[in-house]
Amino acid sequence: MARAKAKTNGAVEKKLVGVADTVIVAAERSKDPTLAIPVRSLANVNFNAKRGIIELGRRKQERSFFNVGMAKKFMQTVLVADALAELQRADLTTSLREIYYRTKHTMKGSHENTFDGQNESDPLIEDLEVALSALREELHVRAENAGSVVGPLVLGDDGDRVDCARLGKGGYSVPSIVEPEYIEIRRCTADFVLLVEKGTQWNRLSEDKFWRRYNCVLLTGNGQPPRGVRRLARRLHEEYRIPVYVLVDNDPWGYYIYSVVKQGSINLAFESERMAIPKAKFIGLSSADPDRYGLPRNVGIKLNDKDIARAKELMKYQWFQKKPWQDEIKRMLSSGLKYELDALANKDFRYLTKTYLPRKLKEEDWLD
Amino acid sequence: MARAKAKTNGAVEKKLVGVADTVIVAAERSKDPTLAIPVRSLANVNFNAKRGIIELGRRKQERSFFNVGMAKKFMQTVLVADALAELQRADLTTSLREIYYRTKHTMKGSHENTFDGQNESDPLIEDLEVALSALREELHVRAENAGSVVGPLVLGDDGDRVDCARLGKGGYSVPSIVEPEYIEIRRCTADFVLLVEKGTQWNRLSEDKFWRRYNCVLLTGNGQPPRGVRRLARRLHEEYRIPVYVLVDNDPWGYYIYSVVKQGSINLAFESERMAIPKAKFIGLSSADPDRYGLPRNVGIKLNDKDIARAKELMKYQWFQKKPWQDEIKRMLSSGLKYELDALANKDFRYLTKTYLPRKLKEEDWLD
Repeated sequence: MARAKAKTNGAVEKKLVGVADTVIVAAERSKDPTLAIPVRSLANVNFNAKRGIIELGRRKQERSFFNVGMAKKFMQTVLVADALAELQRADLTTSLREIYYRTKHTMKGSHENTFDGQNESDPLIEDLEVALSALREELHVRAENAGSVVGPLVLGDDGDRVDCARLGKGGYSVPSIVEPEYIEIRRCTADFVLLVEKGTQWNRLSEDKFWRRYNCVLLTGNGQPPRGVRRLARRLHEEYRIPVYVLVDNDPWGYYIYSVVKQGSINLAFESERMAIPKAKFIGLSSADPDRYGLPRNVGIKLNDKDIARAKELMKYQWFQKKPWQDEIKRMLSSGLKYELDALANKDFRYLTKTYLPRKLKEEDWLD
Repeated sequence: MARAKAKTNGAVEKKLVGVADTVIVAAERSKDPTLAIPVRSLANVNFNAKRGIIELGRRKQERSFFNVGMAKKFMQTVLVADALAELQRADLTTSLREIYYRTKHTMKGSHENTFDGQNESDPLIEDLEVALSALREELHVRAENAGSVVGPLVLGDDGDRVDCARLGKGGYSVPSIVEPEYIEIRRCTADFVLLVEKGTQWNRLSEDKFWRRYNCVLLTGNGQPPRGVRRLARRLHEEYRIPVYVLVDNDPWGYYIYSVVKQGSINLAFESERMAIPKAKFIGLSSADPDRYGLPRNVGIKLNDKDIARAKELMKYQWFQKKPWQDEIKRMLSSGLKYELDALANKDFRYLTKTYLPRKLKEEDWLD
């Protein structure tokens, strides 16, 4: 582990130092230093149907130092690259916000700040991710850690052996960065990963030891899954070849959460490569479920205008073109109702554990 | 453990069943069934300076069945009590939202629902908490589990021995309910609890193994600490007699988070009894710190109108009357700036671990 770690750090550090070198070399040759940054606008984002992921196109933009409009941004990019290199050298991780603070200072002999807000430094970190093809996690930049996991899974974290089957119902708190240099997956004997949108249902399943009976890894991000949770699901899927089932509310946001897990997101298209799980399946809540499972209409929630607009938008996305998906979304629209997973409690507090999921798994009733 | 658990469940179940009994008994005697519910309005909330907690007064309100305006609410209260009794019997926990769904149905022979929204069922659960003096957790109602803990602390959860000193940097995911019937504190050899507002700083400290060097329990709720995190801090404080230090942003919301941990909250005054930690100390970020620790003014954030109004409001609270607190808040107001903990990264990514907290602890520089 230690060796692998040092190696990765070294490679990323070299790339970051390269950014500063670009400036020095160009200056020595009295040339205009430039950086080529892939364009991250919608126009440069495509859905690769064959690979099943949203990816970035090939268009790049030159960022030049001696261009008046670009000089400040260039300087800022070098500052951020420098802070990121510091992280590599010290083998630390930090947050986007702290990088902003670290790189903020008043420029000598002026009252001007290097950065006035985090909205100036965040995009530069994304630029560097793309330009250096280093995942944010490899740059040692954390997001929040808002996930929990239980199940037949043994991790190595800072030399500790973390057995997720022996952590009661609380489980292991999933860190923001689960790259191999930080988190080792020592063993996983699960048959599948169940990625649950909300903490409530995860709690229900954890309390009922569902993972033991159905031999799965129970994972949640308590809402839209944060990067660490997505990466952990992806690594389990990839390294242990086990399927990932996604359980979300039956509303357009639930569909979207699923699609981000599966294909990646439009905003961070360059990350799909290492975050998306193109074979992830949507296990529910489906708009067909209220009928199938006899949920009364009065536990449905009326779609509002935003829901309807969003559902129609989703229907146009290339990755929702398969007939079952068009049917799924149309059914929601024509019923005029959305359903939360919590509504299953209307039948019984344990309906999710005892009836809904067992039947879903038995009937292999999911969407692809 | 098993015995203690059964005992608690039984006692709470009896209280809940008692609610339904009130109706039956009164009906048999052809009397108007009534429930006496303590009033939870501001007018019935006091700060008990001697005990150092915000508590509920003695005013009660009679809720009567044959009063037209109250009949529906009465029926709803009984329905909720019934669902809560079901939880006790089955030894399950659930969320506020699922209780709403569980108790929602269309009344026979009408188109009227028992509940139209969760805003109708939530206050009834609070009513029952107060009326039966049972903490929400004892009623088996969860909030989110959004906390992480590492440190020299061994817990028992569902028969598993969870050693929080052996869970890497990720740590144990703190459940929403940490009552003794669910979570056993088997051992704690820490000298203090450090309750950190935000996940970023918790991550920094966990990564740096700060807890090992300073022998403490590192706890965070990733923002305003949820109930489980507060209860865990309180239990450690009470059962192991160790101090609790609270580390928050230097803004009026940080002060407030601290004050809720210490005195309890106005909205849930009836819970202070078992949630508040009157001896908790505010370790930072103080408005005196930017000067003391040489933070540049440009990493401060200008107070906006809302901040200023909120700070002035806090100054009037009885529990902020001590001179050092008045000075603290005045200093913020006169500087016109607030500071996030993240701003410490301006000095160095590890400034929090290496300089700020060690000096704070050494100088015992906290507010009470």
